[in-house]
Amino acid sequence: MELKKTREDVSIGLLGLGTVGTGVVKLLERNHASIRKRLGRGLRLAAVAVRHPARKRDVALDRVRIVGDPWRLLADPAIDVIVELIGGIEPAKSLVLGAIAAGKDVVTANKALLATHGQEVFQAAERAGARLGFEGSVAGGVPIIRVLRQALAGDRNRAIYGIVNGTCNSILTAMTDRGAEFHEALAEAQAAGLAEADPSLDVDGIDAAQKLSLLVMLAFGARCPLSSIHTEGIRRVGQLDVAFARELGYVIKLLAIAKDDGRSIEARVHPTMIPRASLLADVRGAFNAVHVQGDALGPTMYVGEGAGMMPTATSVLSDILEVAESRGRRDARPAPPLGMPWRELRRARIRPIGGLEAEYYLRFLVRDRPGVLGRIASILGRHQISIASVIQKDRKRGTSVPIVIRTHDALERNLVRALAEIGRLAVVSGKPVFVRIEDRL
Amino acid sequence: MELKKTREDVSIGLLGLGTVGTGVVKLLERNHASIRKRLGRGLRLAAVAVRHPARKRDVALDRVRIVGDPWRLLADPAIDVIVELIGGIEPAKSLVLGAIAAGKDVVTANKALLATHGQEVFQAAERAGARLGFEGSVAGGVPIIRVLRQALAGDRNRAIYGIVNGTCNSILTAMTDRGAEFHEALAEAQAAGLAEADPSLDVDGIDAAQKLSLLVMLAFGARCPLSSIHTEGIRRVGQLDVAFARELGYVIKLLAIAKDDGRSIEARVHPTMIPRASLLADVRGAFNAVHVQGDALGPTMYVGEGAGMMPTATSVLSDILEVAESRGRRDARPAPPLGMPWRELRRARIRPIGGLEAEYYLRFLVRDRPGVLGRIASILGRHQISIASVIQKDRKRGTSVPIVIRTHDALERNLVRALAEIGRLAVVSGKPVFVRIEDRL
Repeated sequence: MELKKTREDVSIGLLGLGTVGTGVVKLLERNHASIRKRLGRGLRLAAVAVRHPARKRDVALDRVRIVGDPWRLLADPAIDVIVELIGGIEPAKSLVLGAIAAGKDVVTANKALLATHGQEVFQAAERAGARLGFEGSVAGGVPIIRVLRQALAGDRNRAIYGIVNGTCNSILTAMTDRGAEFHEALAEAQAAGLAEADPSLDVDGIDAAQKLSLLVMLAFGARCPLSSIHTEGIRRVGQLDVAFARELGYVIKLLAIAKDDGRSIEARVHPTMIPRASLLADVRGAFNAVHVQGDALGPTMYVGEGAGMMPTATSVLSDILEVAESRGRRDARPAPPLGMPWRELRRARIRPIGGLEAEYYLRFLVRDRPGVLGRIASILGRHQISIASVIQKDRKRGTSVPIVIRTHDALERNLVRALAEIGRLAVVSGKPVFVRIEDRL
Repeated sequence: MELKKTREDVSIGLLGLGTVGTGVVKLLERNHASIRKRLGRGLRLAAVAVRHPARKRDVALDRVRIVGDPWRLLADPAIDVIVELIGGIEPAKSLVLGAIAAGKDVVTANKALLATHGQEVFQAAERAGARLGFEGSVAGGVPIIRVLRQALAGDRNRAIYGIVNGTCNSILTAMTDRGAEFHEALAEAQAAGLAEADPSLDVDGIDAAQKLSLLVMLAFGARCPLSSIHTEGIRRVGQLDVAFARELGYVIKLLAIAKDDGRSIEARVHPTMIPRASLLADVRGAFNAVHVQGDALGPTMYVGEGAGMMPTATSVLSDILEVAESRGRRDARPAPPLGMPWRELRRARIRPIGGLEAEYYLRFLVRDRPGVLGRIASILGRHQISIASVIQKDRKRGTSVPIVIRTHDALERNLVRALAEIGRLAVVSGKPVFVRIEDRL
């Protein structure tokens, strides 16, 4: 009887048929034979809920029920797994919670939902004994969720450095390789379909912060509310800074960084200068990468396409396969979605950004008068910031010229005060620019 | 009753206390609290079998039974999981099979055993319903086994390119970065503990071929006997070739390469020229990396330390954790070790190396007489090999000078014939050198 049960097909209800949903349908169709080999049974797409059921689709949905009301899939006892690919908070949240309440397993790629309502969703899944897969929610085709939950489970992770937003990485790559300014590179990315008409979620770092919040939970076994992540985007990165970075041996990347010293946690998203020779510096265009620093394991890195139909669909399908595989085991409760129960997550202190100690790249535009560098240096010195090197170029009396300073390790709150003071000098035009440096990559 | 059972500690018997075994003991000790959080129960090291039980050890083994006879651990009904870290074929093979027969789950890092006796071991585990973890057997700390078995299970993998031998990669890195000759770089690696006194297994590519055989089974779901893998080591790579590679925009790496076109499979280990701009080219020293080309997923890459105590121990521990997690589920048979049953593996044809079509780097030492290049070129032409570019340097009449030729795509069996003919020319000294080029990385 049990044996027969495990040979029945697993029945899937798909919510949303956008880019990723279409990819999942294609993969289920294309790989049905190898899936059956692997599982010993098939995966059957039973029904799809879409806003416009009558619309013509790019994929064959011959024997698939198409409905307009997603709640009908949740109410259908023949459906085993709900795959939520609607995105956003509502109605996705109610539907995911509803599916769990209806005894379904759930697969989702919804980082916004899990980053903002993770506690509610993860705990609901644990209480119900539901499987909840979310590999597609971070870094598209890079299986970083599974790696952190399983492969690195026996180690203490010390740091994560992630390029987790393909839009920003494409823009910064264009600025680095082709000398484009931010607004030009953004327009190109929009034309290429790599950036939304309203690019704020991406270029302001919000998307990356949502992903970082999930990575911190998995990597450090600690809570990490989105609001505790210091988040800066890439709008203020200028071509001038990209060029100076090159001169200093660096590349500017939007990094999602988290560190755990065992007592408190640091979590931040911002443009970062990293050594040109580092592997992360070579991760270009729409690729994503996560570098994990483990206590025992040392550094490991995971690279792949960050978004797009098929990479993310492959991740979603890997979750469906894992759910289907473990559904054969009826008696036991599945492992909790985060690898450990939510209540076991540490409530670690998230350090405020003012307490960060880092090296900084500083850039000022000054009217080139004798003594300006001296005044800047003495303000920095008064705030305990010591200078590692200075670049001063294009000396033409009477025009604004850049002064670039690389600092030694400094405390961010001291730096902010010093820059405010320097910005008020009459010889300094515009707001001083600073970029944090991560040299140990 | 079942609930109580799942809360009991999982009891481990460790065979072998060399480098990796010592690392596993340290990790179990260091991370016991977080392991308990994750599993809801503990992992207890019950007994260790070592050749010299009385010898003093680097790790605390206070409450651990130490025995000289490994079979006593297999006979002990209180031991749940046998961790085999003896290495080599015998007695490891008999012990692993014995442990499976005794109803234990098994974790091993023994690539030689699995690559040469995989069918017997994997099928024994399947028949007994035993869990068999072998993450530590390939690429030390890189979780490539788990990634291929689970994360990429929903995709068709088209190609794998692996830097899977840290010794060779260290030697080639030294030759590339510091201009060392092979024998100097090898001596340095031996002095640093990165190479064995008898380095044949590593530098002749055998270790890499063993790993590739496992990767092919997992990535392509196909059998790949070790004997079908064309295997060349790095002994014949000269500093001259490393320097010419640089000039042509390449780096020489020992790559384990496998490709699957759906009908037949290509599997080979040899020194390879890859573009300097590729991510794999930047994987240096003792690091390992596996680049996987998926049909839907596109390229993904996994990088980490290839060997050493703690990286491999972390992989072994991740297997122990997975085994322990799934031991809670008593009724169901675990997933087969390769992700699908052995009998479902394809018996794909492994293409012989003579049928390879590739671009080649060729290097001849010739006495620089007018017309030599013409004679070489016409022999190549007669064997359907067309020339992409030529480098001829250090023209000094009367001395031997290198001629370097880069070919367009050519058939290897034609090339071998052409080189034999060219080697017989009186004006050519020594054996012509060739290195395969992989340009699509």
